[in-house]
Amino acid sequence: MAAQPTLVLVLDLVGTLVFALDGALVALRVARLDIVGAVTLGMVTAIGGGVIRDLLIGAVPPATFSDWRYLTVATAGGLIAFLLGHHLERLSAPITVLDAAGLSLFAVTGASKALDFGLGVGQAVILGAITAVGGGTLRDVLVRRVPAVLHSGLYAIPAIIGSALTVAAIRLDVFGPVAAVAAATICFLIRMVGVRYGINAPGPPRRAQ
Amino acid sequence: MAAQPTLVLVLDLVGTLVFALDGALVALRVARLDIVGAVTLGMVTAIGGGVIRDLLIGAVPPATFSDWRYLTVATAGGLIAFLLGHHLERLSAPITVLDAAGLSLFAVTGASKALDFGLGVGQAVILGAITAVGGGTLRDVLVRRVPAVLHSGLYAIPAIIGSALTVAAIRLDVFGPVAAVAAATICFLIRMVGVRYGINAPGPPRRAQ
Amino acid sequence: MAAQPTLVLVLDLVGTLVFALDGALVALRVARLDIVGAVTLGMVTAIGGGVIRDLLIGAVPPATFSDWRYLTVATAGGLIAFLLGHHLERLSAPITVLDAAGLSLFAVTGASKALDFGLGVGQAVILGAITAVGGGTLRDVLVRRVPAVLHSGLYAIPAIIGSALTVAAIRLDVFGPVAAVAAATICFLIRMVGVRYGINAPGPPRRAQ
Repeated sequence: MAAQPTLVLVLDLVGTLVFALDGALVALRVARLDIVGAVTLGMVTAIGGGVIRDLLIGAVPPATFSDWRYLTVATAGGLIAFLLGHHLERLSAPITVLDAAGLSLFAVTGASKALDFGLGVGQAVILGAITAVGGGTLRDVLVRRVPAVLHSGLYAIPAIIGSALTVAAIRLDVFGPVAAVAAATICFLIRMVGVRYGINAPGPPRRAQ
Repeated sequence: MAAQPTLVLVLDLVGTLVFALDGALVALRVARLDIVGAVTLGMVTAIGGGVIRDLLIGAVPPATFSDWRYLTVATAGGLIAFLLGHHLERLSAPITVLDAAGLSLFAVTGASKALDFGLGVGQAVILGAITAVGGGTLRDVLVRRVPAVLHSGLYAIPAIIGSALTVAAIRLDVFGPVAAVAAATICFLIRMVGVRYGINAPGPPRRAQ
Repeated sequence: MAAQPTLVLVLDLVGTLVFALDGALVALRVARLDIVGAVTLGMVTAIGGGVIRDLLIGAVPPATFSDWRYLTVATAGGLIAFLLGHHLERLSAPITVLDAAGLSLFAVTGASKALDFGLGVGQAVILGAITAVGGGTLRDVLVRRVPAVLHSGLYAIPAIIGSALTVAAIRLDVFGPVAAVAAATICFLIRMVGVRYGINAPGPPRRAQ
C-alpha cells in the first residue's frame, strides 16, 4: 500500500508550485504574454500532468477540481513568477531547474497514485512518467515549441527512473518521506546532468534524407 | 438546482453553431483548407469545449456522442461557413464576433452543467471558463496559432465573469432565460470592448531578457 | 454483436505496430529526433487514437494500460523504425503507406469497440473515424505540422467509409475476418488513390481574403 496520503499531497503541491512558476516564466521568455496569459500558462503546466493522469485512471473530476489547494497554489505560483520574472537577468536557468523539479516530484506522486488506483506495476511506472512530462508537453504545444519529451533524450528517461524507484519502494513497503525524496532527487540529478553536459540519447545512425 | 434543461440545450446548440461557423472561417482564412478540412475544424471548435468539460466531470460518452443534434448542428455550421465564406470581403470581423458569442454561450452552459453534476461553486466557475475557451484553444493549436486564451488578456476574464454570473444566478435561484442571456451578454460585451479598444491585461513590468 | 474479440485484438495490434513505425519515421524525417524522441513519437502515434477512443466511451484505464501487448508492440515498432530508418533512401513513401494502413485498421477496430460499448450506429461511425485519425493528429501537433486530417481531403473521408462499412457488417451480422479486412482495404485504397493522384476535396469557391 502507498498509504502516505499526506506525504504525496505535500509533494504534489510542491510540484504544482514549481511547475506554475516554470510555466509562467516560459510565458514571459518565449511569448512575452501579459499577466493573464502567464498565469494561464503556469496553471496549465502545473495541473496538466495531474489532469491527464486522473483522466487515464478514471479519477474524475480530477483532484484539481475537487481540491482547491491545487488551483490556489497554481494561481499563486503563476502570479509570483509574473511579478518577479522581470527582476531576473536570465530566465533560462531557473526555468530548467524548476522544470526538472516538477518532473521529479510528479514522477513520484503519479506512480504512487496509479498504484493506489489498482494499476499494475508496469502501468504505474508509465503513468508516473506521463504525469511528469504531461504538463510541460501541453505548455510547449501551446507556445509552439517541440516538446522537451521529444527532443531531449534525458527527459523521459529520468522520469521513468523516478517513477520506477517509487513503485519499487511502495512494493517493498519502504515508501516514506526518505524514499520519496530520494527517488525525486535521483530523477532530478539525472535530468540536470543531462542538461549540464548536453547529453542526449543516441541520434539516428546516419542522417536519413 | 439548475433545472432549466431546455434553456441550457438551446444555448448550447446556438453556441455550437456559432463556434462551427467561426472554426470553418478560420480554416478558410488562416489555412485555406478544403471543404473537409474546414468542416472538421468547425466541428473541433464547436464540440471541443463540451467534450473537455464532459471528460473532466465524468459525463461519458460526452453529450456530443449521445445526442445527435450537436453533431448535426456542428456539421451544418461548418458547411454553411465554407459555402458563404468566399462572399465575405473580410473574414476577421465575423470571426471575432462569432468567437465572442460562442465563448459567452459556453461559459453559461458549462457552468450550469458543472453544477448539475454536483461540483462546488468555485469548480463550476473554472469549468465554465474551460468549456468556453476549450474549443477555440484546440482550433488554434491545430492551425498552429498561439491560442487566444494566452495572448489576449480579455479572453479568459470575460469567460470567468460570465461563468461566475451563471453560478450566482443558479445559487440565488433566479436562473432562467433572462439571467442566462444577461450573463452571456455581459461576457460578450467585455470581450468585444477588449477587442475594439485593444485592451490587454498588464504586461510584464519590464521586458525580461 | 461484434463478438470477434480475437480478430479485433489482432487488427488493433497490427494497427499499433504500423502507426509506431510511422510515428518514429516521422520523428527521423521531420524533427531528426534521437532514439528516445523517436520511440516516444512512435508510441504517441500508435496509442493516441485508442486512448482518445477509450476516454470518450469511458473505458478507463484505456486498453493500453490494462493490456501490456499494446505498449510492447508500440515500443518495438518505434525501436525498429529508429534502427532501420537510416537504411531507407527516402522516408516519405513508407510513411504514407504505414499511415494509411494504421488509419484503415483503427477505423475498423474503433467502430467495432464503440458498438461493443453500446453506442449507436452513427456515434460508432464517428468514433471509429476519431480512433483512426487521433494518433496521427497528436503526432502532427507535437512536431508542429498542420494535421493531415485538416489539409488532406481524402484522409477523414476514407476513415469514415471504413468505419461505416464495419458498423454495417456488424449490424448485418456478417462481421468476421473477411469483412474486417475488406473494410480496411477499401479505406486503404481510397486513401492511397487520393495520395497518388493528389485528389482533394473541393477548395473554397473563391479565395477568401
